[in-house]
Amino acid sequence: MLIIEPGLIYLQIYNYYKKEIITGNLPSDAKLPSKRQLADQYQVAINTVENAYSKLLEEGFIYSKQRQGYFVADVGELYIADPIENEQQPETTTLKYDFSYRGVAKEGFPYKTFRKISANVIDDIEHVAEPDYQGYYPLRQQIAAYLQKARGFSVKPEQIIISSGSEYLYQIIFKLVGGIYAIEDPGYQMLPNIMDINQIDYVSLPIDENGMSITALNKTNANICIITPAHQFPTGIIMNMKRRTALLNRTKTDYVVEDDYDSEFKYSKQPVPALKSIDYNDKVIYMGSFSKAISPAFRVSFMVLPESLLDRYQNVYSCFSCPVSLITQKILTEFISTGEFEKHLNRMRKIYAKKRQIVVEAFQQRPDIKITGSDGGLHLVLQYPKHYTEAQIVTEAKKHNIKVYGIHNYTTSKNPQPELKDERPAIVLGFATMTEEQLKEGLTEFLKI
Amino acid sequence: MLIIEPGLIYLQIYNYYKKEIITGNLPSDAKLPSKRQLADQYQVAINTVENAYSKLLEEGFIYSKQRQGYFVADVGELYIADPIENEQQPETTTLKYDFSYRGVAKEGFPYKTFRKISANVIDDIEHVAEPDYQGYYPLRQQIAAYLQKARGFSVKPEQIIISSGSEYLYQIIFKLVGGIYAIEDPGYQMLPNIMDINQIDYVSLPIDENGMSITALNKTNANICIITPAHQFPTGIIMNMKRRTALLNRTKTDYVVEDDYDSEFKYSKQPVPALKSIDYNDKVIYMGSFSKAISPAFRVSFMVLPESLLDRYQNVYSCFSCPVSLITQKILTEFISTGEFEKHLNRMRKIYAKKRQIVVEAFQQRPDIKITGSDGGLHLVLQYPKHYTEAQIVTEAKKHNIKVYGIHNYTTSKNPQPELKDERPAIVLGFATMTEEQLKEGLTEFLKI
Repeated sequence: MLIIEPGLIYLQIYNYYKKEIITGNLPSDAKLPSKRQLADQYQVAINTVENAYSKLLEEGFIYSKQRQGYFVADVGELYIADPIENEQQPETTTLKYDFSYRGVAKEGFPYKTFRKISANVIDDIEHVAEPDYQGYYPLRQQIAAYLQKARGFSVKPEQIIISSGSEYLYQIIFKLVGGIYAIEDPGYQMLPNIMDINQIDYVSLPIDENGMSITALNKTNANICIITPAHQFPTGIIMNMKRRTALLNRTKTDYVVEDDYDSEFKYSKQPVPALKSIDYNDKVIYMGSFSKAISPAFRVSFMVLPESLLDRYQNVYSCFSCPVSLITQKILTEFISTGEFEKHLNRMRKIYAKKRQIVVEAFQQRPDIKITGSDGGLHLVLQYPKHYTEAQIVTEAKKHNIKVYGIHNYTTSKNPQPELKDERPAIVLGFATMTEEQLKEGLTEFLKI
Repeated sequence: MLIIEPGLIYLQIYNYYKKEIITGNLPSDAKLPSKRQLADQYQVAINTVENAYSKLLEEGFIYSKQRQGYFVADVGELYIADPIENEQQPETTTLKYDFSYRGVAKEGFPYKTFRKISANVIDDIEHVAEPDYQGYYPLRQQIAAYLQKARGFSVKPEQIIISSGSEYLYQIIFKLVGGIYAIEDPGYQMLPNIMDINQIDYVSLPIDENGMSITALNKTNANICIITPAHQFPTGIIMNMKRRTALLNRTKTDYVVEDDYDSEFKYSKQPVPALKSIDYNDKVIYMGSFSKAISPAFRVSFMVLPESLLDRYQNVYSCFSCPVSLITQKILTEFISTGEFEKHLNRMRKIYAKKRQIVVEAFQQRPDIKITGSDGGLHLVLQYPKHYTEAQIVTEAKKHNIKVYGIHNYTTSKNPQPELKDERPAIVLGFATMTEEQLKEGLTEFLKI
């Protein structure tokens, strides 16, 4: 028996019949009261009953026969969802000021543009198309045009592979190029694990003031190097031209992976060309990402393969699909081709330049702390006097509700050394995600240490 | 010199100054005419000039000083996009009627709902959060609730792993479970390639009228089987209960991968429970996907790991990110938790039941052709009389502008046998993507063969 209570009446009628039908109290093909009858019986508007019936109809609980009315559908096969509340996982306690190098600024993100583009892409969604395993071709065209303009080298869309993050791109490279890999130390801290899982031989080589040490490299048999020449992660060092040519001209070097993860943001007047732009012997595998340039929320990375690896790639990988959904790929294509990406980058350059300036200025009152690696990207390095230790800085900061990251977190060595007495303790300081206000407050607190 | 032509005047002003600035004709810090001056000079509304200037300002070409006016910015570091047209790749010729098993129907897709949900998710985008490598927790909760309700087994969100397609899930399984894999023949035709790339030992075992042959399985040392028990791909055979228990109780079976790729759609009254629902010894790795239930355009799949594999998974995979973007994961979470997924499935069941009926009825006039595997899913199998050959049917269909797929395309054997004289030639016929109208037309044409 349906008892009308205060609240949305049409939902009460709907819920009542839904339950009666699911539990079998109303069997298949039983006739429902006419809309007029029900409206009279409960003294409600006929419109209200209509709303309830059309919801039941739409969800498959009843069917209609012309001039005969509404009947209970056979719901034996229906899946009845029991929507659960989104419970949150127990949250890890976060500190008030987090100087993480991850993430991008909220302020400049073009929410409206992405809402509009997404709506268009969804309206135009393709449910059939065999997605291209290498990535959506028009997106690869846009990336090729961008690289030409912004990074100064010319590649064909056929050389570009789109994926969901560098891990997946590295797994492809590991299948294409055998041998011993040289990686940077400190460097991208997940690389050793990804290599171990894939049973790849590697050596970790130290970074000096010009990047990966060639002297150290020449003492190994490494035939492929993974480097971040534009803004070494995490030290921020720019690899100089002499080092670059030495690396490329080294006879043993079969390939160099250039991870250009944050090259969009430069603050010095000196341009930093891509290694790929002087790659006359087609040895450089160029890797890029939209995680810093747009947002990590999209999870889109790409790489450019040398021509010499294309055949092998196509033979091996045509059985895989591109892990990035066609929807995301079309959204990015539209974002770049309409010139919105250009606008966005120009806007963000100003935002980040200003934030970097705030950090640099804040440390002017502390001449004992040296800032390095600040010519580009979204983080820089603070070198403390030797009487500090990394652990001490991190612990003290925590007491002030501040999260900072010691550079030893990014060691990639198989036998990590303890902090040495003769090196300056260093902190990797990201400045992208906090607002200018938060950044100023956080720095004021941090400088109390 | 700016010459105003018919068309959007503010854009002409904008383009003129943009070009002058980029080419260096207007140097850094040069002062622009005031808005009033420019409006007077060209006899246009001051609003028009304002629009042009604010676009230049927004994109970083000019800057403003209070009470002094507008000046040319230093654009040496700007990235100037040269938007290229989206050229299409040379299209492969498509036939008018494509009975592919891939893809879903356009008719029932809730465009409006997804537009709305996407807009909300984009407004709420997180640019910082460390994404969960196992997948967004609330989405895993929703999937767990769905599996409980729709497939009759109970798992914890902690057992669920979200990824972009089964290839990526298989690569995880290969790292977790060693040994010899048994796969179905015919079956998912990409599996052998994916296994070869990962250097996995496997055997292809024949399918009989109840699924993978246990007799054949027992002649091998396979310790892990990959099967599609609910609607074998591509034969559509349902594995019977006896075969299921035999498979699970077999001493040598360490794990069984149950790929439940299209179980959402059933047309017979007989329910087909998931193998996982009788998995009393925690041996079943359950694999599901939203490709059939929603659309392949999202590229979201998931698997449920037995408790025994969880530790190993977490040790190995925490260095990888989930390849599905957080945006897509939040959209799906919202789609399920609001009950829209329930509605969608109920709507699609009717659409597909009707399409299947159209196919079944069309072949009633051809008693020489037997329909099998049509109790569920989005494709069925046509068994032709022995005087046909698969190649002949496919070629003849092509002449009628129809694309159909011979079952031998799905062989997974390392030594594929030629079509045998004593077996009936068979066609795998998908019916999801064409409209009812197209389906009827296409079948009328196809039946002329």
